[in-house]
Amino acid sequence: MGEFDLIDRYFKRPATRNPLGVGDDCALLGLAPGMQLAVSCDMLVEGRHFLSTIDPRKLGHKSLAVNLSDLAACGAEPLAFTLALALPQADDAWLEPFSRGLLALADQHGCELVGGDTTRGPLNICVTVFGQVPPGQALLRSGARPGDDIYASGTLGDARLALEVFRGTLALPPELFTAARTRLEQPTPRVALGVALRGVATAAIDVSDGLAGDLGHVLDQSAVGARIEAEALLQLMAAPAGAVAAEHRLECVLAGGDDYELAFTAPPQRRQAVAAAAAIAGVRVTRIGRIEAEPGLRVVDAAGDPMPQRFASFDHFA
Amino acid sequence: MGEFDLIDRYFKRPATRNPLGVGDDCALLGLAPGMQLAVSCDMLVEGRHFLSTIDPRKLGHKSLAVNLSDLAACGAEPLAFTLALALPQADDAWLEPFSRGLLALADQHGCELVGGDTTRGPLNICVTVFGQVPPGQALLRSGARPGDDIYASGTLGDARLALEVFRGTLALPPELFTAARTRLEQPTPRVALGVALRGVATAAIDVSDGLAGDLGHVLDQSAVGARIEAEALLQLMAAPAGAVAAEHRLECVLAGGDDYELAFTAPPQRRQAVAAAAAIAGVRVTRIGRIEAEPGLRVVDAAGDPMPQRFASFDHFA
Repeated sequence: MGEFDLIDRYFKRPATRNPLGVGDDCALLGLAPGMQLAVSCDMLVEGRHFLSTIDPRKLGHKSLAVNLSDLAACGAEPLAFTLALALPQADDAWLEPFSRGLLALADQHGCELVGGDTTRGPLNICVTVFGQVPPGQALLRSGARPGDDIYASGTLGDARLALEVFRGTLALPPELFTAARTRLEQPTPRVALGVALRGVATAAIDVSDGLAGDLGHVLDQSAVGARIEAEALLQLMAAPAGAVAAEHRLECVLAGGDDYELAFTAPPQRRQAVAAAAAIAGVRVTRIGRIEAEPGLRVVDAAGDPMPQRFASFDHFA
Repeated sequence: MGEFDLIDRYFKRPATRNPLGVGDDCALLGLAPGMQLAVSCDMLVEGRHFLSTIDPRKLGHKSLAVNLSDLAACGAEPLAFTLALALPQADDAWLEPFSRGLLALADQHGCELVGGDTTRGPLNICVTVFGQVPPGQALLRSGARPGDDIYASGTLGDARLALEVFRGTLALPPELFTAARTRLEQPTPRVALGVALRGVATAAIDVSDGLAGDLGHVLDQSAVGARIEAEALLQLMAAPAGAVAAEHRLECVLAGGDDYELAFTAPPQRRQAVAAAAAIAGVRVTRIGRIEAEPGLRVVDAAGDPMPQRFASFDHFA
């Protein structure tokens, strides 16, 4: 199978939403009049972002999901994406399920594959995703203000549990492992929530490297600090309290990584609007703390006392 | 050096042309009102697209140049790009010159680095580039019509000479090798020519895998054939006739690869307009043949007789 056969067979589908898709030097995107284009790009490498044992269908899903999660964090509506793929060989047994998983998620979000590149090389998947957002309405990391509530969507920390099982450092009952593994391998990008939070949230970020580190970017760029409640954090993990020791649980929630949920801020007077956005999107949101003027991230216990833990965010070069 | 330090030190510069650059979940691009967005994406892998011996500064240049060449082939004006980079380690001695070469070319074209991703992994460089083009004016592969002239910009085949020297299959005098090596390692994207050919050319493609193969895509997508003149092709190589045997010369011009010139078509009545576009862009264009209704690519000798050679295009999985 040659390069162009491979593209034709697995990745070339007629563009319906955009003026020109796969097959020319460039794709052409059609934004609605007056909209801004939001762009994000993630590169996934075997052994760092996924294990070699992952089902290619799930990997296809995840490759786009992590990018859609960035659009969600900006409140942008997905339009299209490009896929660049380096493969050790052109293998139907891998390409068929990979493209199926990828395009199934794309279809769910009306996000068309419009172009890309394929080459031989160590397995590497680079997706660049395009969305549209009305000017001035993108959710940025820099908009949090003292007094704002801090929220997290969905559940946090379960993906890390699955990773620890794969690493052999944790044992879980089969049904909990299956649920955690789904969170690790097939994250759900919170696209509808991001769009519903336009005009409601003051700042947002997607939680990919761990809540503490990612919320830290919001605090840095907004020049504020935060106080978050350990009791609320402990409720964020889907796995029941008995399955994981409390300290490890807190660590997974704060620094687990691979969650692809949204962390966001909004003033207290918008609590009803936040609840309405969550209802529209069909996802739970949990209030976990408050933005403060004093810089730094403080995790406090039930008595309001700061906890001593430090939680490192994932860093590919640290 | 951590991941965010690396980005700050080498790749984070204030966005001036676009509303939001590096540092949030998404970048925001500002197209001029009514413009379409042109998008292209190329992934470069060591050993396939460049040799490990390449100067990182030249590699930075080439990584963006091959993408700008795709915008040129569509007649799009560069706006911005994203960079995803997998690196074996965070190495200042590599990153400093790489980013310098990359951003120098970006500055020449007013093309801002607005986002991307960095991760550890086997060296892999994925650039996605964004340009704007008035609706209906993008140069496509599908617009060639019987009777159209066929042109190539600049010079073809010299990059392949340098590759053959590196492979040890060819010897060149030092000054010819230096010139050929510059063509291989620091191609010049024909952006100004592409923009000037809007409304003049009927079809265009960038020559990256070899003229025969790339022109073949135009013929396929336009459902036409072509007759090209070997005598004209032989004039396309910059290296003088004495330096390379005529047969090898023709092979390099037709199937050398890595040229990053434009091949395009235009009706004979637009010859003056083509010459004017070339003058505006400051690049030579050569008329090499004509589009015919009969499918297939025919290379003819000085007597007009078809030549027997077949020239394969580069295919990463063939």
